[in-house]
Amino acid sequence: FWLEGDWGRAFTMNNDQLYPRHNDFSERHIGPSEDEKLLMLQALGLRSIDELIEGSVPSSIRSGLELNIDKPLGEHELLERAKELGRQNKVWRSYIGMGYYNCRIPTTILRNMFENPGWTTPYTPYQPEVAQGRLESLLNYQTMVCDFTGLDIANASLLDEGTAAAEAMALAYRHVKNRKFYMDTRCHPQTKSVVNTRAGVMGIEVIEEKYENMDFSNRDFCGVLFQYPDTNGDIHDFTALAQTARDNGALVIAATDLLALTILKPPGEFGCDMAVGTSQRLGVPLGYGGPHAAFFAVKDRFKRLIPGRMVGVTRDARGNEALRLALQTREQHIRRDRATSNICTAQALLANIAAMYCVYHGPHGLKYIGTRVHHAALMLAAGVEDCGHAVQNNLFYDTIKVLPKEGVDVESRAKLKEINLRYFEDGTIGVSVDETTEEADLNDLLWVFGSKRSVRDIADSMGETLNGDISNSPFYRTSQYLTNQVFNTYQSETNIVRYMKLLENKDVGLVHSMIPLGSCTMKLNSTTEMMPCSFPEFTDIHPFAPPEQAKGYATMLQELEDDLCEVTGYDKISLQPNSGAQGEYAGLRTIAAYLDSIGEVQRSVCLIPESAHGTNPASAQMAGMKIQPIKVTKEGAVDMKHLSDMAEKYSETLAALMITYPSTHGVFDEDIIEICDLIHHHGGQVYLDGANMNAQVGICRPGHFGSDVSHLNLHKTFCIPHGGGGPGMGPIGVKEHLAPFLPTHPILKPGADSQSFGCVSAAPYGSSAILPISWAYIKMMGAKGLRHSSEIAILNANYMSKRLEGYYKTLYLNKNGFCAHEFIIDCRPYKKTAKIEVADIAKRLQDFGFHAPTMSWPVSGTLMVEPTESEDKRELDRFCDALITIRKEIQDIEEGRMDIKVNPLKMAPHPQSVIATDSWDRPYSREQGAYPAPFVRPETKFWPTVGRIDDIYGDQNLVCSCPPMEAYQSPYLSDDEVPSASRIQV
Amino acid sequence: FWLEGDWGRAFTMNNDQLYPRHNDFSERHIGPSEDEKLLMLQALGLRSIDELIEGSVPSSIRSGLELNIDKPLGEHELLERAKELGRQNKVWRSYIGMGYYNCRIPTTILRNMFENPGWTTPYTPYQPEVAQGRLESLLNYQTMVCDFTGLDIANASLLDEGTAAAEAMALAYRHVKNRKFYMDTRCHPQTKSVVNTRAGVMGIEVIEEKYENMDFSNRDFCGVLFQYPDTNGDIHDFTALAQTARDNGALVIAATDLLALTILKPPGEFGCDMAVGTSQRLGVPLGYGGPHAAFFAVKDRFKRLIPGRMVGVTRDARGNEALRLALQTREQHIRRDRATSNICTAQALLANIAAMYCVYHGPHGLKYIGTRVHHAALMLAAGVEDCGHAVQNNLFYDTIKVLPKEGVDVESRAKLKEINLRYFEDGTIGVSVDETTEEADLNDLLWVFGSKRSVRDIADSMGETLNGDISNSPFYRTSQYLTNQVFNTYQSETNIVRYMKLLENKDVGLVHSMIPLGSCTMKLNSTTEMMPCSFPEFTDIHPFAPPEQAKGYATMLQELEDDLCEVTGYDKISLQPNSGAQGEYAGLRTIAAYLDSIGEVQRSVCLIPESAHGTNPASAQMAGMKIQPIKVTKEGAVDMKHLSDMAEKYSETLAALMITYPSTHGVFDEDIIEICDLIHHHGGQVYLDGANMNAQVGICRPGHFGSDVSHLNLHKTFCIPHGGGGPGMGPIGVKEHLAPFLPTHPILKPGADSQSFGCVSAAPYGSSAILPISWAYIKMMGAKGLRHSSEIAILNANYMSKRLEGYYKTLYLNKNGFCAHEFIIDCRPYKKTAKIEVADIAKRLQDFGFHAPTMSWPVSGTLMVEPTESEDKRELDRFCDALITIRKEIQDIEEGRMDIKVNPLKMAPHPQSVIATDSWDRPYSREQGAYPAPFVRPETKFWPTVGRIDDIYGDQNLVCSCPPMEAYQSPYLSDDEVPSASRIQV
Ligand SMILES: Cc1ncc(COP(=O)(O)O)c(C=O)c1O
Ligand SMILES: Cc1ncc(COP(=O)(O)O)c(C=O)c1O
Ligand SMILES: O=C([O-])O
Repeated sequence: FWLEGDWGRAFTMNNDQLYPRHNDFSERHIGPSEDEKLLMLQALGLRSIDELIEGSVPSSIRSGLELNIDKPLGEHELLERAKELGRQNKVWRSYIGMGYYNCRIPTTILRNMFENPGWTTPYTPYQPEVAQGRLESLLNYQTMVCDFTGLDIANASLLDEGTAAAEAMALAYRHVKNRKFYMDTRCHPQTKSVVNTRAGVMGIEVIEEKYENMDFSNRDFCGVLFQYPDTNGDIHDFTALAQTARDNGALVIAATDLLALTILKPPGEFGCDMAVGTSQRLGVPLGYGGPHAAFFAVKDRFKRLIPGRMVGVTRDARGNEALRLALQTREQHIRRDRATSNICTAQALLANIAAMYCVYHGPHGLKYIGTRVHHAALMLAAGVEDCGHAVQNNLFYDTIKVLPKEGVDVESRAKLKEINLRYFEDGTIGVSVDETTEEADLNDLLWVFGSKRSVRDIADSMGETLNGDISNSPFYRTSQYLTNQVFNTYQSETNIVRYMKLLENKDVGLVHSMIPLGSCTMKLNSTTEMMPCSFPEFTDIHPFAPPEQAKGYATMLQELEDDLCEVTGYDKISLQPNSGAQGEYAGLRTIAAYLDSIGEVQRSVCLIPESAHGTNPASAQMAGMKIQPIKVTKEGAVDMKHLSDMAEKYSETLAALMITYPSTHGVFDEDIIEICDLIHHHGGQVYLDGANMNAQVGICRPGHFGSDVSHLNLHKTFCIPHGGGGPGMGPIGVKEHLAPFLPTHPILKPGADSQSFGCVSAAPYGSSAILPISWAYIKMMGAKGLRHSSEIAILNANYMSKRLEGYYKTLYLNKNGFCAHEFIIDCRPYKKTAKIEVADIAKRLQDFGFHAPTMSWPVSGTLMVEPTESEDKRELDRFCDALITIRKEIQDIEEGRMDIKVNPLKMAPHPQSVIATDSWDRPYSREQGAYPAPFVRPETKFWPTVGRIDDIYGDQNLVCSCPPMEAYQSPYLSDDEVPSASRIQV
Repeated sequence: FWLEGDWGRAFTMNNDQLYPRHNDFSERHIGPSEDEKLLMLQALGLRSIDELIEGSVPSSIRSGLELNIDKPLGEHELLERAKELGRQNKVWRSYIGMGYYNCRIPTTILRNMFENPGWTTPYTPYQPEVAQGRLESLLNYQTMVCDFTGLDIANASLLDEGTAAAEAMALAYRHVKNRKFYMDTRCHPQTKSVVNTRAGVMGIEVIEEKYENMDFSNRDFCGVLFQYPDTNGDIHDFTALAQTARDNGALVIAATDLLALTILKPPGEFGCDMAVGTSQRLGVPLGYGGPHAAFFAVKDRFKRLIPGRMVGVTRDARGNEALRLALQTREQHIRRDRATSNICTAQALLANIAAMYCVYHGPHGLKYIGTRVHHAALMLAAGVEDCGHAVQNNLFYDTIKVLPKEGVDVESRAKLKEINLRYFEDGTIGVSVDETTEEADLNDLLWVFGSKRSVRDIADSMGETLNGDISNSPFYRTSQYLTNQVFNTYQSETNIVRYMKLLENKDVGLVHSMIPLGSCTMKLNSTTEMMPCSFPEFTDIHPFAPPEQAKGYATMLQELEDDLCEVTGYDKISLQPNSGAQGEYAGLRTIAAYLDSIGEVQRSVCLIPESAHGTNPASAQMAGMKIQPIKVTKEGAVDMKHLSDMAEKYSETLAALMITYPSTHGVFDEDIIEICDLIHHHGGQVYLDGANMNAQVGICRPGHFGSDVSHLNLHKTFCIPHGGGGPGMGPIGVKEHLAPFLPTHPILKPGADSQSFGCVSAAPYGSSAILPISWAYIKMMGAKGLRHSSEIAILNANYMSKRLEGYYKTLYLNKNGFCAHEFIIDCRPYKKTAKIEVADIAKRLQDFGFHAPTMSWPVSGTLMVEPTESEDKRELDRFCDALITIRKEIQDIEEGRMDIKVNPLKMAPHPQSVIATDSWDRPYSREQGAYPAPFVRPETKFWPTVGRIDDIYGDQNLVCSCPPMEAYQSPYLSDDEVPSASRIQV
């Protein structure tokens, strides 16, 4: 472990031995002890890890070289380094706006959610019975979005405002089918870039114009998009536009601002069909661009077209109200290239933080904040005008655009105060105020504009009715919001802490037990990795701040890119994509741009094995490619015959192959080099889905064995916590020839990179603020640690597969009998023998306190188990014991000892409401129901909070916002002795 | 709430209204909404809060004045201010040693324990069924201490090393009864001060000498104390001393260092009876002196004499192993002035952190760290000698004492490097290295001593066998430690996170529900208050660092003192006492010193009402006073007749009256001024126990209505979280005439303050690192907020008392029918009517998810309820409903509807092991057992983890270290397929 030999006794006088490193993070990250590793190797009949790797990874692709990365840092050294980089960032006050605003994250939410692994480590709530906490919080989020936008239904977040706008356009197009799409010129520039980038390959023509000049009478538009308030700060009256557009068959989309909507008439009240935007300013830091949750809300009639995850209310097996993800048939994992979108990982954690911010402030508090921000802008505008500048806005919320008078060098004065403003090319200046703007800040801003007066002074002279006040305009909001009790109960810190803890404790996370979700790599998310994510020097930087203020970020991102290149064998990395799916899309667009550049414009066919993750076909479709599925053999490998036939057939038009490696079946196929060669031979490019990098890091490098592009799920292999469904990061690595075509960004590199295909995220480096996690992981693990992680990931998987031998068949192993870092066990036979479905096994695992492995993907009726290197042998054994016990329970049914309808599997999971009832009438005991193995003990039991979820009922009776809360009513108090629903009246 | 009127519409142009404060922390701190306050007033038949205060607080003592303290800061402003003060502290590298060492708190422990309200907010584990998590961790602590010291039994922490040494002396004296006590001159100076201070009034004569010169043959010593290794770094062979001392009837006490004991022969192996010390360096930051946990270990035969809390193993009602505080009859709350000590609040949280540090590192990791520190010292010594200085130590562990050669100005060179060393008066210099000392630090230290060589260079020339290495001495440790499985299982971060979460979730804390413990003030401990406690600028300062490096602390402590003076009406505050009990002791000693100074040396009688907290008589006894109990009337007030009789009787010898106000019965007595006058008339001083300040802040000031001294439990009124049994802070406020006699400190003010009675804590300002909490609370609440807190504390208590009317009798109310901030309900009648004891009610409350109120104190058979201002009406109502439901259950017994022996109260609490069993044979349903009220729901149920604890069994079969863990054994694996107990072999 720490050292060899008995150190206290005798040693040679070499300083490294006398005084070695203080600690080795890799030993904390990797679960099994040396003893355990030996026992597992023994169980596999192996003498060494090397033997295992030789047996599982084809020698043709194995890299003999140790990774050339820095010597590993200890945890404290890492933190010192991160602080040092932080100091290289300069936190100036930002009034840049453009969809990113300072705000105050309530410290109790920061600490008890963002910094709490109970909230950060759960997976997407696909097992709703052990995820009611996050589901409730996401439902709060949806409710909040519906309330503010005045629309009927909202999803549980998208990646950012730009992609949300693009998704809205896609929805409009899917629904209306017209190829023209109108976008107001005064949308945020990054939104326009993302929309334009998306539109191109979808065959949509985007018309950018001022809405005043638009004519829709040709009825050839599918939709219109405008910003409300717009990027310059103006509030336009879009009522007429909306009316005309709708009259002419187009859908109307408002990109809007939730804080403004606390006092501004909501889009749903002037004819909009959809509203999109970011919920960043509701308690989520700037983070140099992300992660933030985008929202997406629509009228009821579009609910089945909405992209992404959506929480809905349903009931459980006993008819009790329960929550789960609704209408999953819209999503890529079911519908593949016909899905509404490729989105998979979204921004659950950030949506939850924004939702909790609203729960914390309540309607009255939010209205207060919203009003105060508006007042700041009004006072600022008055002061700026007062000293002779021209404020260009008529009606505005928090942003003004100023044409400065001659003789005041606003920019220089701003720099003196370390203040960032938005400088337009035409010399005008944008200023956006926010929740954090205090009187002193307003005074500084006035000073920057050359005013000699204080804001107090200005305010005193503004007269009884504030000039320009929204409350005196027809845009003043009159409708209520956040009337549900959940937004009116938790305003005291005591209460919100209890609420957060209550929700936390309903959900299984890595803080409880292993989550062996195949293809998801639920490994340790260490505290030290996470800590820099809450350093103000990283959280408080605006994404469009001048680069010289983000030098610390620049260094860190460069180091991360270099290390990822070294790990993958690629030459260049783009950190822009916010998720794996976004990475796929960006990678395919990069390929297409490259092919175009060499005159191969006709190449648009994408070969995708049938076993691919749903995001692959969905992304290819979004990238405008034609999808040709490739068959998979019984052994789980790509059907080489079919592949070469199709490559041959599409030789002229072949753009790419998308392939996952090691395969989605959990095996390192021997023929990967051959496959890559084949595709290249036919003029195509190889996209290697990097979801399974956790089996490869330090062992082999996709860029070296033939792949051209990969995305890396940093939220899998590189330790970003899954956050209950996001955030994630899906940077892509490419070979040299593709590098010029990688994503660009309109603000960071305006006009540059003419070869780039465009822009996929609102922020230049996606969710920059979580990149320190992956950076830290690599820095602390070092070359040996990273490789050893992969080795132990493979060892753990093979050990589990071996232990389950005789109970469950592992479907795919390589010719030496080994899997890679995950494996698939077959549960199909039990349907015939005992009427047991794989879902019954998954639910039964909850009774053991376990989250089920990935279910029915890539092979239906199976479970895909990925233990990761962070689990020790004890935990692997417990999980195997649970599966073995379940197998024995199945046997009881098979052999007639247990009822075929009412048995512990069919009835699983067993919540307390079932176990603690007096009316127990099942052919097995309560104990068997609730404590099915010796390690499931009353003192430590993790309970599912509801019984098995009824998905169908919920989808048929779709409800996606908070149902009225049944507040506890004291049986001993009369009605007038309890306060009305709301602590605060709006 | 936030603002009056409909703000968006119209307002006058006053800037404060246009742009008011951003947020008001007092609204977050105080639970009830305005609506709720009104409803509660209504229920009491009152029109306003003023009316309530007029009715409950005597007008004679009410202060008409608003507190003169700063305008309240918002939470973000507070954090800015704290950071600013932090920047005024200079974090130099400290090698001062003297019992305080840098260390690395594992980040995952910092975040998941210290920064997690799940760990910080529970109370002392007096309700063991809902506290098994902390009890387990404290048992780990005791086990670790026993293992390292080689002794049989340890307690669950004391306040600091100094007081632990004093307690050891007291134990020796109690046991042996000889009046002489030998203390080696080479103990840490602060330890000597605390011991000397204590000894004086106990009639013990402390002989300070070098042990080499001692002669015990007169057999008149009760004990000997030495430091091992000593304050100069030397390791002496105390075997002979121990032998002689013991042969001559004295007990042998080692003050020792747990890290050194990883490689050093433990005290228990060379004849010591006791070992004391601090566990600070096991993962707890310096914190400018605290909080840190002191340990106290003894041979088995002294176990019933051990001071403080001790966790022991026992069994529950069904015979299952369970933990609880053992042998409580030793403690002050039972035995009062005959208790082993006055200690009450200890250092549970810090003990838990130190224990978790050991769980995290395991025996091998700790030995590694321990060895590495020793190596650093060896190399440093070699380097220092090499360049011509004289190292004065022969055998040493981590500390050397150097006589510098002429011509090297070590001190100036150290300052250049921002390094603190220990400068002895004789010109020698002490250097203590620690876990954080890296090679670069050693090089800097060598440079400071004028060496031109690097440590690498030195190491290379040191030869095969390290000169001075403990491992080559007879002091090398050969015995094993931390062999229990708990220390050999959780070395991976994944595992330790799960272990911490598992323990956390077993315990009821403020994160779950209200904890209405009378006299304990379990109010909100807000995140913002807590945050500065983990700023490195506050955590990383050595208590004996030069004052110019602690200017931020100085300002903060001065502000806190000023504010506390303003709140209490005193003239001067001492921040030295680490707990309320310590404050009492310090206050009484201050009084005695004052009386001595005016020639009233004969005054030594302390009058204490029978209803006083156990610490009062225990402290008075320790302060050498003679205790005269004062009777209490049926109404709970001091029996004025008896008081004046006794005052009269002891007029010549009266030293003090200790009185709690509002009284321990929860009422503001009318006659407090009269009482104070009476005592003063007879020449005594008034000690007003400040535990109940939460009813007074902003309303009345003890220093104004006649009291001379009070301690303030900052861990009650001023928001320091209770930490599951500490840390706390018990500063004392005094009137002007007592100020000169307040505690001093040997390092901070050596020789000064000749009028001071002495020193009560090892560190000058006690647990400085938690003082930011109280400072922040006052700064954020402001005058109005503080007063309003007291008002709502009183409102909440009166409302609850009122709601329980007709169900339970509130024992004491004032003449207007009001209580103060707490009240006592009578449960005695049910013993007769239904054989129900108050304990049955307390345990039954656990089934509702509630922690019981204070039980049987100050009146046996009662519950004392203190809701605090942080609970909203909903929570108060739920608690009342629980009590009312219980009352109805009692009625069922009274009226024969329920069995008198087997009923939900007698059988309470109901853990899962009882509820989920198939063999249910009780005359009530499982549902009634587990979900006794509508608000107790299966989805949110908090479970007691064990059944009712059998205290007697545990005390008769005392086991106070970890029993062998029954590790989960897979039923499907053979023995050789599981790793041996230890992940790491020692
Ligand atoms: C093989 C594979 N590809 C792509 C993805 C999509 O990644 P993301 O969820 O980050 O969009 C996943 C996600 O689980 C995956 O397993
Ligand atoms: C009235 C009273 N006095 C003194 C104390 C002792 O305080 P501490 O526990 O901080 O030593 C307490 C503790 O609960 C108390 O209630
Ligand atoms: O902690 C108390 O014993 O009150």
